[in-house]
Amino acid sequence: MSTLTVELGERSYPITISENSLSQAHLIRDFLKTQQVFVVTNPTVYALWADKLSAALTGIDVQFIQVPDGEEYKTLQTMETVIGELLQRHAARDATLLALGGGVIGDLTGFVAASFQRGIPFIQVPTTLLSQVDSSVGGKTAVNHALGKNMIGAFYQPKAVIIDTETLKTLPAREFAAGMAEVIKYGIIYDAEFFAWLENNLEAIKALDSATLQKMIYRCCQIKAEIVAQDEREKGLRALLNLGHTFGHAIEAEQGYGNWLHGEAVSAGTIIASVVAQKKGWLTASEVSRITDLHAAFDLPISAPDSMGYDAFMRHMQHDKKVEAGQIRFIIPQGIGRAVVTSDIEDQLLRDVLN
Amino acid sequence: MSTLTVELGERSYPITISENSLSQAHLIRDFLKTQQVFVVTNPTVYALWADKLSAALTGIDVQFIQVPDGEEYKTLQTMETVIGELLQRHAARDATLLALGGGVIGDLTGFVAASFQRGIPFIQVPTTLLSQVDSSVGGKTAVNHALGKNMIGAFYQPKAVIIDTETLKTLPAREFAAGMAEVIKYGIIYDAEFFAWLENNLEAIKALDSATLQKMIYRCCQIKAEIVAQDEREKGLRALLNLGHTFGHAIEAEQGYGNWLHGEAVSAGTIIASVVAQKKGWLTASEVSRITDLHAAFDLPISAPDSMGYDAFMRHMQHDKKVEAGQIRFIIPQGIGRAVVTSDIEDQLLRDVLN
Repeated sequence: MSTLTVELGERSYPITISENSLSQAHLIRDFLKTQQVFVVTNPTVYALWADKLSAALTGIDVQFIQVPDGEEYKTLQTMETVIGELLQRHAARDATLLALGGGVIGDLTGFVAASFQRGIPFIQVPTTLLSQVDSSVGGKTAVNHALGKNMIGAFYQPKAVIIDTETLKTLPAREFAAGMAEVIKYGIIYDAEFFAWLENNLEAIKALDSATLQKMIYRCCQIKAEIVAQDEREKGLRALLNLGHTFGHAIEAEQGYGNWLHGEAVSAGTIIASVVAQKKGWLTASEVSRITDLHAAFDLPISAPDSMGYDAFMRHMQHDKKVEAGQIRFIIPQGIGRAVVTSDIEDQLLRDVLN
Repeated sequence: MSTLTVELGERSYPITISENSLSQAHLIRDFLKTQQVFVVTNPTVYALWADKLSAALTGIDVQFIQVPDGEEYKTLQTMETVIGELLQRHAARDATLLALGGGVIGDLTGFVAASFQRGIPFIQVPTTLLSQVDSSVGGKTAVNHALGKNMIGAFYQPKAVIIDTETLKTLPAREFAAGMAEVIKYGIIYDAEFFAWLENNLEAIKALDSATLQKMIYRCCQIKAEIVAQDEREKGLRALLNLGHTFGHAIEAEQGYGNWLHGEAVSAGTIIASVVAQKKGWLTASEVSRITDLHAAFDLPISAPDSMGYDAFMRHMQHDKKVEAGQIRFIIPQGIGRAVVTSDIEDQLLRDVLN
């Protein structure tokens, strides 16, 4: 078992990573304010992990609230339904919400926790690779609007993040691969050594070797915690975590949420950002190859859908949260292990890359 | 013109009160991050004050978003509509929202500002007495859920509160009276001298004498600012501001939002709390009379609807945000100028008072 802390003053919290966290009752119990716990999850995750969680919390008033599975349900409507359940079951302001699931469950539950009665405590128990290495850490919560992804949300930190790597054993291969896109991201933007470590440990990762996965997830959470501690509300540094996301969100929006997984869109978006970097002279051809190859090794998409060109991308990117003063802000690698936020990408260069 | 500051460290902000604030462009301009401003308002307020505001902001990109008038539209659905408008009009993360209206507009706009892209700046321009003395100050934002008032929201502070007392001249008498319930509240919970001042200045207040109104609003904002500075997130002291609200919310919920004005329900709730206090030996009969008389002087309701008894109140109050660990927390006066939060009200006493 390994633990690290997201250092945010009085809002600091621990991330615990182990092969069997869900069975270790104290990990959750230590963070409950009262004995009233509402677990928000979906039917798939419920079927797999509800029993294990319930067993660990014997004697506590644990109630499950299930929402439909899928990004298309990460909406204000679902939020209203969950809050209706909380009210009908007399949830008090000191009850604890527990998000048991992937990024959709975590983002939704976090925003419900941020907003219900203007804020109640919550715990993240991410069960997908993507949520374990990225979305459950750092307090970004949100739901989607029909006109834009994650457009409605809050910065709201959990009381704890509890990661059980066993949950990855039941994760569909495509979901695991999608999570790897976020893992690789950390190497590109922040840690060349970690990128090389990923290249050298491909087989152990693919084989879901427990020790390797724990080490990998730990390093991702550590990098994210470092970045978030310095820039909780994304005024600067934290924006680097959006590598591949500006292009990726456009792909997700154009294809309809749920057809491309988030991580798949990030993968294609990262390759696009890398090609932009190459044209700017910031990445060598060989670095772009390494980035492309590592994504391809997990069968991740390495290009946008054929149907999408410059116009389709721009239509969506103008709505992106990273737009400031009318300028789209791109995250572009500068070598492996470093990236910058820039609006200074020539329109013609973008046209060349996207068409 | 008078100004005071809500002291909240880096989230501090000024409240400006004057007879003609809306014409003083710098009051608003000083707090804009960029030149993109979205004014959320309703058709009634738009017709009265949009021109004056637009004139003051000549040269700035001011766009109006109108929502229907009434508490029944303070919902997630309206929030989704407003955010749709912001997205369609390409609102950036550094755009400023301006709430022009009463409590419904302020609460809704504040929650939109808190949530849109995880938070953009906003300015409160309250146009009703209730919102000027209470809801626009202190950062409580929310929308209603079908099962409970203000159940979905955030603590999110504005960049400035700009109060133009001229707007009270066009306010319906019933709305003005409803605001007086919150004014009187400050006297009861915090300031016996202010309570006496209200008794002594009844006629000038009713005549909407400008100097008297400014003085009255200033003192209310000052008390609220003092309380909020000590307890922004309502862990203790701030709960006193909910005098009359636990009973009042039950009345509003039972009667359907919009039939009783919020301030009217608070008025009846305050009288109920005062009668409870009398039975506890915390208020004299003469003090209860003074409290009742001051509300009655503004034609405010001084009792609950005849149809509502103990059971109806309890059904709603169990959902109240002030419930903690299963205990309903009541705000009860202890003399005029002081109040306490207590769960220690005997059930039989409540039955006697409510039936």
